[in-house]
Amino acid sequence: MNDRKLKLADLAKLAGVSTSTVSRALNDNPLIKQETRDKLQQLAKKHNFSLNTAASRLRTQKTNVVAVIINLDGDTEQSINDPFLLKIVGEINLALNKFGLELLLSNSFMASDDWANYFINSRRADGIIVVGQGKSQANIEAAASAGVPLVVWGDPKTPSSYPIVGSDNYLGGRLATEHLLANGDKNILFLGDPGHAEISERHRGYLDAINEAKATPHVVSIDITSSAAYKGINQLLVEKGLCFDGIMACSDMVAFGAMKALKERYISIPNDVALVGFDDIAMADISHPSLSSIKQNTQRASVILVEKLLAQLAGQSVESQVVEIELVNRQSSQR
Amino acid sequence: MNDRKLKLADLAKLAGVSTSTVSRALNDNPLIKQETRDKLQQLAKKHNFSLNTAASRLRTQKTNVVAVIINLDGDTEQSINDPFLLKIVGEINLALNKFGLELLLSNSFMASDDWANYFINSRRADGIIVVGQGKSQANIEAAASAGVPLVVWGDPKTPSSYPIVGSDNYLGGRLATEHLLANGDKNILFLGDPGHAEISERHRGYLDAINEAKATPHVVSIDITSSAAYKGINQLLVEKGLCFDGIMACSDMVAFGAMKALKERYISIPNDVALVGFDDIAMADISHPSLSSIKQNTQRASVILVEKLLAQLAGQSVESQVVEIELVNRQSSQR
Repeated sequence: MNDRKLKLADLAKLAGVSTSTVSRALNDNPLIKQETRDKLQQLAKKHNFSLNTAASRLRTQKTNVVAVIINLDGDTEQSINDPFLLKIVGEINLALNKFGLELLLSNSFMASDDWANYFINSRRADGIIVVGQGKSQANIEAAASAGVPLVVWGDPKTPSSYPIVGSDNYLGGRLATEHLLANGDKNILFLGDPGHAEISERHRGYLDAINEAKATPHVVSIDITSSAAYKGINQLLVEKGLCFDGIMACSDMVAFGAMKALKERYISIPNDVALVGFDDIAMADISHPSLSSIKQNTQRASVILVEKLLAQLAGQSVESQVVEIELVNRQSSQR
Repeated sequence: MNDRKLKLADLAKLAGVSTSTVSRALNDNPLIKQETRDKLQQLAKKHNFSLNTAASRLRTQKTNVVAVIINLDGDTEQSINDPFLLKIVGEINLALNKFGLELLLSNSFMASDDWANYFINSRRADGIIVVGQGKSQANIEAAASAGVPLVVWGDPKTPSSYPIVGSDNYLGGRLATEHLLANGDKNILFLGDPGHAEISERHRGYLDAINEAKATPHVVSIDITSSAAYKGINQLLVEKGLCFDGIMACSDMVAFGAMKALKERYISIPNDVALVGFDDIAMADISHPSLSSIKQNTQRASVILVEKLLAQLAGQSVESQVVEIELVNRQSSQR
């Protein structure tokens, strides 16, 4: 084992690069420039050195732990207590366990900004799964360009240098809005913060559907929490009265906040206001009225996230991937 | 720093024990036999050695990680996806973060049975929080007697050599049952598996209340999942018809399974059957009918768990603690 480690370190020393760069280069990892890969592969050949990255990692730096970073913005009240985030964490944990890995739960407030050092170089974890792109992707980009094995749960259509797995958020926003329009709703609110990567796509889907129907868009920009939605809808009702007949909420928790505000004023759901959420958490099915929602397939996505992380650990190149979504039609939008 | 480490190691070598035994002995940790403590304290005095355990841990073996072990039995279908377990994990994570610690999520299937080696000696974590006593406490007891800093979420009245933090489960079972009896219910089912430590106490509270009222106890022993409850109630209705007018469910998820079976047969809740759950998860408030439940104060309990673990890490002796509970009265039990 020590012998192996020395050989890899020796080669790195000869080339004047890090051992992980050597390891990646010998596995043709596209994170390393082609020129550097060629140079290192020739050097390895010259010194009669061959390397299996996965096996080498097993010997040299395997922790069997994957850091899951809940990527929260400084300006959100959303926390790990959010049922959808907890659902994802639970699903990722099950997927990791299947591969003999355990989950280190972290978040953007706990970890230093230098994720490569904080998690990987300090041997806290073998790789990183980031949940949520947040508004700023600086830490993710820095970690990815430092060669950290990393996958992101987010909007897979965002151009990026790292693989993103997530739902077709644009289609979700569009399906929810088209469903409300087909119900006969004329004034449909978008309830959520379009500054956030995934929600921005949902908003784009909403806008396209609204514009095609020649309806008028209304955005109520709020934080991704039930209480923010409750306050936002209450305020709107106080200031402008019942000026809407449909709501496309950016999450189920946001939809429940709106539902509470409407119920308190005896505004009927779905007769006065039809409501569609996003995520399809367990509560959507048992609430009253039950909540129509865009189902995100978190179970499937979690398995894909882990598979893509393992592929990177094995030195393979990995692409972003869209996971199918569907509209689940329940009482809150049925007239 | 190295100097400090050598000194501790030297002392351990001199005494022929492990460094952690020295560290604990010098802090008067009751996990170490009094005889050994005396011997090591004299040895330290002789060599002019003084030690602050917390500081020494900081220097020598701090990972800033706490392993949270979901202690599932082999014969349950309950998993990390259970909303109550996820709620506890979320709360413990927030409590750990307040102290600058991160959470390694593990479970009794992933970890080897030797938790001391798997988590502590391999430097995966500084200490362990076990969620649930399960049916067998062998692994917990082994880790505790190996001197691992460890706290358990469970039934705090169970006699044990390690600190347990949890609700007054006996009182919870009693309150729920007395509430149903006060409603006029005569035939109240206990829905849950009394073989499990916490549920056994809830069952004991149920039995005492039933016996005092000279009513007849009926136990439907099922796994702690919604689907097991759904099947159990369905089967009972098929075999014996509507032979009950109240249900004390051992968890909210179990109550939701029963609710589904009753609703499908148009049995009215609460008019035909009154229902009380346990845990008070977020879903209890939004289900229809909303679910009466015994509220477990997981937020408070999580802070106590972390504080007790830190006290152990600082070499202090720590006792079990009961966290207050209350009945939250909602539609499912209001006649």
